[in-house]
Amino acid sequence: MTSALTAPRSEVPAVLGRAGVLLAPAVEAAVDRLSPELQPALRHHLAPGAKHVRAALAVLSAAAAGGSEEDGLPGAVAVELVHNFSLLHDDIIDGDLERRHRPTVWAAFGCGQAIIAGDALAMFAVQLLLEEPTPPRVRAAAVLAEATQAMIAGQAQDMAFETQGEVSADECLAMERGKTGALVSCAASLGAILVAAPPPVVHALADYGTHLGLAFQAVDDLLGIWGDRHRTGKPVGNDLLQHKKTLPVVLALARDDRAGRLRRVLEGDLDAAGLARAVAMLEECGAREDTAALADRHLQAALSALDRAGLVAGPAAELEAVARFVTARDR
Amino acid sequence: MTSALTAPRSEVPAVLGRAGVLLAPAVEAAVDRLSPELQPALRHHLAPGAKHVRAALAVLSAAAAGGSEEDGLPGAVAVELVHNFSLLHDDIIDGDLERRHRPTVWAAFGCGQAIIAGDALAMFAVQLLLEEPTPPRVRAAAVLAEATQAMIAGQAQDMAFETQGEVSADECLAMERGKTGALVSCAASLGAILVAAPPPVVHALADYGTHLGLAFQAVDDLLGIWGDRHRTGKPVGNDLLQHKKTLPVVLALARDDRAGRLRRVLEGDLDAAGLARAVAMLEECGAREDTAALADRHLQAALSALDRAGLVAGPAAELEAVARFVTARDR
Repeated sequence: MTSALTAPRSEVPAVLGRAGVLLAPAVEAAVDRLSPELQPALRHHLAPGAKHVRAALAVLSAAAAGGSEEDGLPGAVAVELVHNFSLLHDDIIDGDLERRHRPTVWAAFGCGQAIIAGDALAMFAVQLLLEEPTPPRVRAAAVLAEATQAMIAGQAQDMAFETQGEVSADECLAMERGKTGALVSCAASLGAILVAAPPPVVHALADYGTHLGLAFQAVDDLLGIWGDRHRTGKPVGNDLLQHKKTLPVVLALARDDRAGRLRRVLEGDLDAAGLARAVAMLEECGAREDTAALADRHLQAALSALDRAGLVAGPAAELEAVARFVTARDR
Repeated sequence: MTSALTAPRSEVPAVLGRAGVLLAPAVEAAVDRLSPELQPALRHHLAPGAKHVRAALAVLSAAAAGGSEEDGLPGAVAVELVHNFSLLHDDIIDGDLERRHRPTVWAAFGCGQAIIAGDALAMFAVQLLLEEPTPPRVRAAAVLAEATQAMIAGQAQDMAFETQGEVSADECLAMERGKTGALVSCAASLGAILVAAPPPVVHALADYGTHLGLAFQAVDDLLGIWGDRHRTGKPVGNDLLQHKKTLPVVLALARDDRAGRLRRVLEGDLDAAGLARAVAMLEECGAREDTAALADRHLQAALSALDRAGLVAGPAAELEAVARFVTARDR
C-alpha cells in the first residue's frame, strides 16, 4: 500500500485550474462591490498564488450530486471569501509577516485595514448567498454561517492552547476539526445543498470534507516543521517558535517517555540550535510518523465517505484526486 | 422652538428599560452558544451599562407596524450583536483603552480575543435570524448583512480620512451615514420586516433610522469635544487627539476664514494647552452651533418620516421619544 509518507509527487488535479477560472471573475466582481477604501488591501491579499481547494470542492460537490459545476459557483465564491476572511484575521493574531511569499495585509496595510477587510469578506459571503433567497441558497447561507462559527471557535481553542499547560491529542483534533475541518466540510457539501441534493448525499459529502480537513491539517502541521520553505511559502519552524501546540507536538508529548525533556526544549528559548534540537527530538520519538499515519487514516475515512454517497462517478473521482493531492507530502 | 442645544434634560424612555429586560436573557443565551474560550471576553464586553437603543428601535418597529414587541426580539438581538461586533473591532482600530468606564476587550484580553470575539458576534447575528428560515426572517438576515456591510464601509472611510488632506462635509456625512446610520436604520425597520409590514412602512421606518443615526452621530461628535467625561465614559478630546475628522472639525474647516490656522493647531502636537486652544477655536468659529443645527435638522427629518409611515400611535410616540432622548445634549 502506498502511504501518504511515501507517495510519489502528485499531479495537480485539473479541477483546481477550472475552479480558479470560474472563480476569478466572480471574486473580482465581489471585490468591486465592497468598500473602495478596502479594495487595494483585498486585491493584494487575493492576488494569484492560492490553490482554491475549497472552491474546487464546492463546484465538484454540485457536479457530484447531479448538477453542473456552475451550480456550485455561488457556494465556491462564498467559501473562498470566508476562507480569506479567516486568513486576514489569523495572520494578525499569529503575527505572521508573510503569506504566499508576500507581505500579509496587516504587515503591508496596517492592522485596522486587515481587520475590517476580513469583516467585509465574511459578511459579503452571506450577502451573496442571500441575494437570491431560494430555499437551497438560504440553506447554504445558514450552513456557511454555522461552519464559520465553528471555524472561529476552533481558532479560539487554538489561541487558548498557548496558555494551557497540557493539550491532549483529542483536544487538538477537536480544535482542528473546527479551525480547518468545518469550512472544508462546508465547501464539500455546499454545492450539493445548492442543487437541492437529498440529505444523505449532503451528509456523506460533509463527512468527506471533515476528514479531508483533518488530514490536510495534519499534513500542514507536518510541513510547518519538516516542510520546504520555498514550496510552502511559510517560514519553517514558525509554529515551534510560536510554541504552537500542533498535532506532531501534542502526539509527541503524549507518547514520549522523555516528554518532560521535550517539553523543556520546546518551551525554552528556541534559537537556531534549539529549533534544530526540537525538530530532531520530535522526529526521534516518532511524532512525524504518527502524524502522517493520522493523516492517512483521515484520508481513508474521507474516501470511504465518498464511496457510500452514491455520487456521479466522474466528479467523485475528482473529489478523490483532490483529497490525494492536498494531503500529499510534497505540496 | 426648543433646539437640541437648549432642550431640558430628557427623561429615559421606558422602552429602553423594557428592551433591556427582553434582551438580557436572549443575549445571554446567544453567548452561551458561542465558543467557551470567548465567553469571558464577551461577558466582560456585554456587562451592564449599554443603553440598548438599537434593540429598543427593533422592538418598537415591530409594534409600530402592528405586531408585538416580542415579534421584534430576534431582530433586536441580532442588531445588538452586530453593534457590539463593531465596538469590539473599532476599539482596537482606534486604540481606545476604555468603554463605559471599563477596559476595552483588546486592552483586557488582547487583540486576538477582541478580533475573533467580534467575528463570532457578527456571524451569530446572521445564524440567529436564519435558524427559522421564514421569508420575513430571511429578508431580515439579508437586510442586516447589507447594513453591516455599509457600516464596515463607513468605518473604512473614517480610517481613510486620517490620511486624507481635505474632507468635505458631504464626505463626512456619507461616512457617518454608513458607520452609524446604516445599522440604526436597519434596527428601526427590522421589527417591521419581521412582522411582514408593507414596503412603504418599512421604508419610512428605515428613513427615520437613517436620519436618527446622523443626528445621533452629530451629537456624539459634539460630546467627543464638549461632553462630560463622567457622563459619556469616554476621555474628552480623544477624537481631536487622534486627529479624527469629525463633523465639528470638518464644518469648521469648511467655513472658517482662519481655516489654515485652525488646521495647523489641529494637526500639531496636542498637549493640554494645544487641546484647549483647538476646542476654543472650534467654538469661536461656530462649529459647535453648526453641528447642533445639523443634528436638529436630521432629528426633524427623522420625526417627519415617522409621521408619514401610518404607524400604530403608541409605539410611534415612543419612537419619537427615543429619537429626542438619544439626541439630547445632556445624555
